Amino acid sequence: MKKVVLGFSGGLDTSFCVKYLSEDKGYEVHSVIVDTGGFSAEELQEIEKRAYALGVKSHKTVDALRSYYDSVIRYLIFGNVLKNNTYPLSVSAERMSQAMAIARYAKELGADAVAHGSTGAGNDQVRFDMIFNIMIPGVEIITPIRDLKLSREEEIAYLKSKQVEMNFDKALYSVNKGIWGTSVGGKETLTSDKFLPEEAFPTQTAKTAPEEVTLHFRKGELSGINEKTFEHPVEAIQYLQSIAAPFGIGRDIHVGDTIIGIKGRVGFEAAAPLVIIKAHHALEKHVLTKWQLMWKDQLAQFYGNWLHEGQILDPVMRDIEAFLENTQQQVSGEVSVTLFPYRFQVNGIRSPYDLMNSEFGKYGEMNNGWTGEDVRGFSKIFGNQVMIWHRVQEKVKGEG
Amino acid sequence: MKKVVLGFSGGLDTSFCVKYLSEDKGYEVHSVIVDTGGFSAEELQEIEKRAYALGVKSHKTVDALRSYYDSVIRYLIFGNVLKNNTYPLSVSAERMSQAMAIARYAKELGADAVAHGSTGAGNDQVRFDMIFNIMIPGVEIITPIRDLKLSREEEIAYLKSKQVEMNFDKALYSVNKGIWGTSVGGKETLTSDKFLPEEAFPTQTAKTAPEEVTLHFRKGELSGINEKTFEHPVEAIQYLQSIAAPFGIGRDIHVGDTIIGIKGRVGFEAAAPLVIIKAHHALEKHVLTKWQLMWKDQLAQFYGNWLHEGQILDPVMRDIEAFLENTQQQVSGEVSVTLFPYRFQVNGIRSPYDLMNSEFGKYGEMNNGWTGEDVRGFSKIFGNQVMIWHRVQEKVKGEG
Amino acid sequence: MKKVVLGFSGGLDTSFCVKYLSEDKGYEVHSVIVDTGGFSAEELQEIEKRAYALGVKSHKTVDALRSYYDSVIRYLIFGNVLKNNTYPLSVSAERMSQAMAIARYAKELGADAVAHGSTGAGNDQVRFDMIFNIMIPGVEIITPIRDLKLSREEEIAYLKSKQVEMNFDKALYSVNKGIWGTSVGGKETLTSDKFLPEEAFPTQTAKTAPEEVTLHFRKGELSGINEKTFEHPVEAIQYLQSIAAPFGIGRDIHVGDTIIGIKGRVGFEAAAPLVIIKAHHALEKHVLTKWQLMWKDQLAQFYGNWLHEGQILDPVMRDIEAFLENTQQQVSGEVSVTLFPYRFQVNGIRSPYDLMNSEFGKYGEMNNGWTGEDVRGFSKIFGNQVMIWHRVQEKVKGEG
Amino acid sequence: MKKVVLGFSGGLDTSFCVKYLSEDKGYEVHSVIVDTGGFSAEELQEIEKRAYALGVKSHKTVDALRSYYDSVIRYLIFGNVLKNNTYPLSVSAERMSQAMAIARYAKELGADAVAHGSTGAGNDQVRFDMIFNIMIPGVEIITPIRDLKLSREEEIAYLKSKQVEMNFDKALYSVNKGIWGTSVGGKETLTSDKFLPEEAFPTQTAKTAPEEVTLHFRKGELSGINEKTFEHPVEAIQYLQSIAAPFGIGRDIHVGDTIIGIKGRVGFEAAAPLVIIKAHHALEKHVLTKWQLMWKDQLAQFYGNWLHEGQILDPVMRDIEAFLENTQQQVSGEVSVTLFPYRFQVNGIRSPYDLMNSEFGKYGEMNNGWTGEDVRGFSKIFGNQVMIWHRVQEKVKGEG
Repeated sequence: MKKVVLGFSGGLDTSFCVKYLSEDKGYEVHSVIVDTGGFSAEELQEIEKRAYALGVKSHKTVDALRSYYDSVIRYLIFGNVLKNNTYPLSVSAERMSQAMAIARYAKELGADAVAHGSTGAGNDQVRFDMIFNIMIPGVEIITPIRDLKLSREEEIAYLKSKQVEMNFDKALYSVNKGIWGTSVGGKETLTSDKFLPEEAFPTQTAKTAPEEVTLHFRKGELSGINEKTFEHPVEAIQYLQSIAAPFGIGRDIHVGDTIIGIKGRVGFEAAAPLVIIKAHHALEKHVLTKWQLMWKDQLAQFYGNWLHEGQILDPVMRDIEAFLENTQQQVSGEVSVTLFPYRFQVNGIRSPYDLMNSEFGKYGEMNNGWTGEDVRGFSKIFGNQVMIWHRVQEKVKGEG
Repeated sequence: MKKVVLGFSGGLDTSFCVKYLSEDKGYEVHSVIVDTGGFSAEELQEIEKRAYALGVKSHKTVDALRSYYDSVIRYLIFGNVLKNNTYPLSVSAERMSQAMAIARYAKELGADAVAHGSTGAGNDQVRFDMIFNIMIPGVEIITPIRDLKLSREEEIAYLKSKQVEMNFDKALYSVNKGIWGTSVGGKETLTSDKFLPEEAFPTQTAKTAPEEVTLHFRKGELSGINEKTFEHPVEAIQYLQSIAAPFGIGRDIHVGDTIIGIKGRVGFEAAAPLVIIKAHHALEKHVLTKWQLMWKDQLAQFYGNWLHEGQILDPVMRDIEAFLENTQQQVSGEVSVTLFPYRFQVNGIRSPYDLMNSEFGKYGEMNNGWTGEDVRGFSKIFGNQVMIWHRVQEKVKGEG
Repeated sequence: MKKVVLGFSGGLDTSFCVKYLSEDKGYEVHSVIVDTGGFSAEELQEIEKRAYALGVKSHKTVDALRSYYDSVIRYLIFGNVLKNNTYPLSVSAERMSQAMAIARYAKELGADAVAHGSTGAGNDQVRFDMIFNIMIPGVEIITPIRDLKLSREEEIAYLKSKQVEMNFDKALYSVNKGIWGTSVGGKETLTSDKFLPEEAFPTQTAKTAPEEVTLHFRKGELSGINEKTFEHPVEAIQYLQSIAAPFGIGRDIHVGDTIIGIKGRVGFEAAAPLVIIKAHHALEKHVLTKWQLMWKDQLAQFYGNWLHEGQILDPVMRDIEAFLENTQQQVSGEVSVTLFPYRFQVNGIRSPYDLMNSEFGKYGEMNNGWTGEDVRGFSKIFGNQVMIWHRVQEKVKGEG
Repeated sequence: MKKVVLGFSGGLDTSFCVKYLSEDKGYEVHSVIVDTGGFSAEELQEIEKRAYALGVKSHKTVDALRSYYDSVIRYLIFGNVLKNNTYPLSVSAERMSQAMAIARYAKELGADAVAHGSTGAGNDQVRFDMIFNIMIPGVEIITPIRDLKLSREEEIAYLKSKQVEMNFDKALYSVNKGIWGTSVGGKETLTSDKFLPEEAFPTQTAKTAPEEVTLHFRKGELSGINEKTFEHPVEAIQYLQSIAAPFGIGRDIHVGDTIIGIKGRVGFEAAAPLVIIKAHHALEKHVLTKWQLMWKDQLAQFYGNWLHEGQILDPVMRDIEAFLENTQQQVSGEVSVTLFPYRFQVNGIRSPYDLMNSEFGKYGEMNNGWTGEDVRGFSKIFGNQVMIWHRVQEKVKGEG
């Protein structure tokens, strides 16, 4: 009997896949769910129960939280990555982690095939396909929903015909939760002109009084919040999330270019990711040189886009990570942030590496490092080529 | 008698310059003030009166508002330029316009010298020096405050000795106002760790109820607000400013690299600029292709930095403007924004050029344009090189 | 009867297509050949005769030489485009022109389908597919060789069975000729380690005595050679080619990334393109500013790659062309080049726009524009940030 | 008595400095020469003798060859750095090494001042000033030639008045030799239109028969030539130089932007550097992915320019080095090159990491990895956005 490893979330599409692969196609189905911070322990148990009820041969829960952070999130923080200047890549990043974990599991099990529940209309199919093609070449990729072009109704009818009982109601908003943010899709995101209503966002806003919070960074990584320190940055992220999310911070709509070429629009809420990235960036503005900031931006923008497009295994990504890692040696210090309902303000930073050090010159005040005469000379030389350019043009015009 | 053209604001430094240049140095002083949106008609009259009282031979007010927009601001909008992802370059941009207007005036008058009141500690000295070196080579540049290394107290003592009467009190916060934003410096911005207090910002917040506003863009330029259309975009900007500023929107602190190499920190409030840039960018995300967005970002980031560093006359700036202008042909449509106290939200856009057009494929829904099988082929080819790379590494390891 | 427009070269693959489409598939076949400088008038007549002999309903020769130059080559010159620093994109560029001409012809004829003879193993299939998908959506694309996965032998057998007589011998080297260079593939280019032998290159080397030639550029375009001027730059290119090609100049092997992800290797000879690009670049180094040169390079590298990948219709290409065009206003002057067997040397340039103008400073000699003291001040300020950075590190270490 | 460390080459300018600093200014002069491959042992002894004869307190020869390679040249190779696509940065790179070695020596000696013989007209003054400002802040920088604005004739008269005997004839061409190339300046390089004559180049051409040479690379570094292996890459470079230089290979004229804004022109010969860079690049084209090649190019171009401008101590340079180093893990293999008089040809490469591996697909031939149908799907999706863009434009026009 051929073994198939199936990425399983317990939803309609992957429930269909279990039944279809095991009963219609005769596969031994091994379901797997990769936890990247989107599920509680109870939910994971519920999903496991559901997998067995549907008839899987085995079910596995992979705790990928730390590996997700170590291999992806830390570089998104180092690079202050916000796609199109807005979106922390919540879903794109976690799909990569999930696909790689599934591929590793399929290899471990010696599976003949691997299956995912993607439709033919989104980014995820490309991400799963590519990771599987690369990491487990020769293992067949099965995508029942995409291949059979099934509608939601057809899937429900099929499952009912197999006596499967589950909640078949469609949620008003489709939500994907993970440690690096929660995406929200719904009728407003299918057109271009409306924002999501308050009720579309899963987190209920509860706090109204401003709250100051101090983020501690060590070599670019979040190591502490206020007086608390943490064993691993994921814990710091989760703790910050618990503080910031009730403010309704970090909500927006991302409009972006999908891998398949169409424009897509998706809402998200990502309180901790936004606060961390903006605080980290503020710290960097104080401790990095002008050209470090410039090149980090360029490389990180590419890094985010290429990750988004599923290309995390391109070795250029390792090269960029080496660059980014090297830039973080001085990114240590603390950042003060005030949280307000629906917004936050980065107040300032403290760092031993702060280049805005009054010993070496204060903006707007004279100092001993250089004189006005030095700057006059600088201005002359700094503008020299453009001065020559303009004089050459005038000379040509004069002779013309 | 030698003629000097003096950039004059009516403040302590330039008042000193009038007296010093005319009485101590024997120049015929022609003062000039370039209005880039920072002064009321009354203030301009007051400044003129003050100039004559100090003893200038002539005083001129240059209305540079439209030329400022036409030569600089429109490209900052086209490029969504926010320096270090934060600051709309309020001061840097207007200094360029002012320096160029002063140079043109000095040329027109046939001046022997040009003077500016910059100290030796900031960016402005470089900007003025460079523009003058380039546009009016041969005309002497005089910078009394920089050259004499005068303290505030010394300037006051000098002016008092000349029987000049003016308000010598130092403002708690130094404010520079213009159509593209107001900068605010004070004791908090001299160190790294504090935000400016509410009272530091010149605009008093007055509105609390959310307000929806619609921005109309034509080829990238703001042409209308709600139902109103305007003759020139500067009027639209001013109108939007009158609506948005009372919300306290667009305030932040910019931390940046000065031209002279030190880090500087400055607060600002720029309600209309921030709303315009974010609305314009949102529209672009819908109507431009992925690579248009990518290259615009890279070029505009450089454009902003190079402008900030006083290099507006480098011909590469004209080349980038040609690029940016070309990208704006389809950037027409309307953007809905909701203003809240201290923040705003871009709700969505409408445009005939919207590429998120449901006729040609909806994200997350299948369509007639392509099949799941097409995407499967795409994934294979799109990941082909990286797949080969990984297989080659495995082969080498296997043989190693 | 359904009409198909077929790109026709007279070779084995497209001869097969005529027979297959007309006789097996029942299409009315309208063959078209797009001349981008690779054929003599006699060859074109021969191809036409051959098309009718095979049974096409109509045959058309499109003279695309000038439109090819106007829409592609001029920008490759403006950008000094050499892919991977080597290859003038000879084939990639002309395929775009050909595909667009075929699409326009198909539209004009109201064709139901368009066919190309590409196999499933190269770049051209993607280029043709994409241009047709974009320019004539809804028109069916037929690719018999790719779809039937035919071997050379099978094609020959089929044609013989249809009583077609032609030279079925396989050439030792497959050659693709056009105005912007000739590509050469053969057994050496199928592996990584060998250069092509002399006899693989179609042009016989005949000249041995060095020859000096002067290229005249007007706004970046080649307008004259030595004393001759030309009506259109394509004539200047062809004339230069007649002078330079007999030296065996401009030969190399290009190793590159194909659109489909594998590495490919192809020989080429492109005497005029190489001489023009290097001469043009030399002129630019004298008349453009540092940052114009820098940004031109970056944009042109992308432009070349994106063109190579078939994306000429992305509007970002128009934006880059606007940039490049704007940079060429001062790229006028003459460039002296000496041709030797297999190599050439750019001797120097003369231009009224030359920024290396001794009036405004000679490298290595003092002048009146600035003093050593100015440069001393410049050095201080130019190195200021990095100086501060190092002092901050030392301070931290000292305190650590 | 105050100590000054003086960079000393034994030429007119630095001989003047010894006398002037010791006798007129009363310094204890410690001369130092930093060898970066430009001197024979005899020449170094001669220079030492000369220094003592002029009256230095001590003279030191620093062998910086390996440290020069380790800190600079290897990254220039990793990055295939040719400034303006031509010049291997022969002089710029070695000045950095020399300046840093002098600064370290001044620190070691506890010098009060450091002196260099630069004039006020070139790049070197900026490089020395900046390195000294950064590495030994507080140590006075003395530049007698620049400060006194001395002409050659005045220096000679001064030295004669001090009874100094040396060859005061001016060489026809000023030559600067180092392991990474030799620069040549002369009357032809002072204007824009002429190439250097054969006799200007210090190496006499002696070889005419083509010679094949194999370069072995290990992780991007030259480890062997033909059958020879070397302890350190500098030895491999020197050995290759001995083989290639007699062909007159690697000569050209560099036209570039000096740090002080004017255009400069300088001849050079750099046989080994050119052969190494082109061979290394050829190998990389086979073993790196498309985006690795692309980003390496962009970063390396900046790296070269920033090094040229004296900014080697900017920490962004370390970040880029980390990137470049990471890319070189697979850059191992051999490259065959044929040397001819005045030119060379890269024949091909062999590497276990070659991605042009026929197991995974040959360009132009079908394989088992993917089908024509896959590519058809790829083309559809790859061109999807641009297709939509064009259809949207048509729709707008249709409605317009």
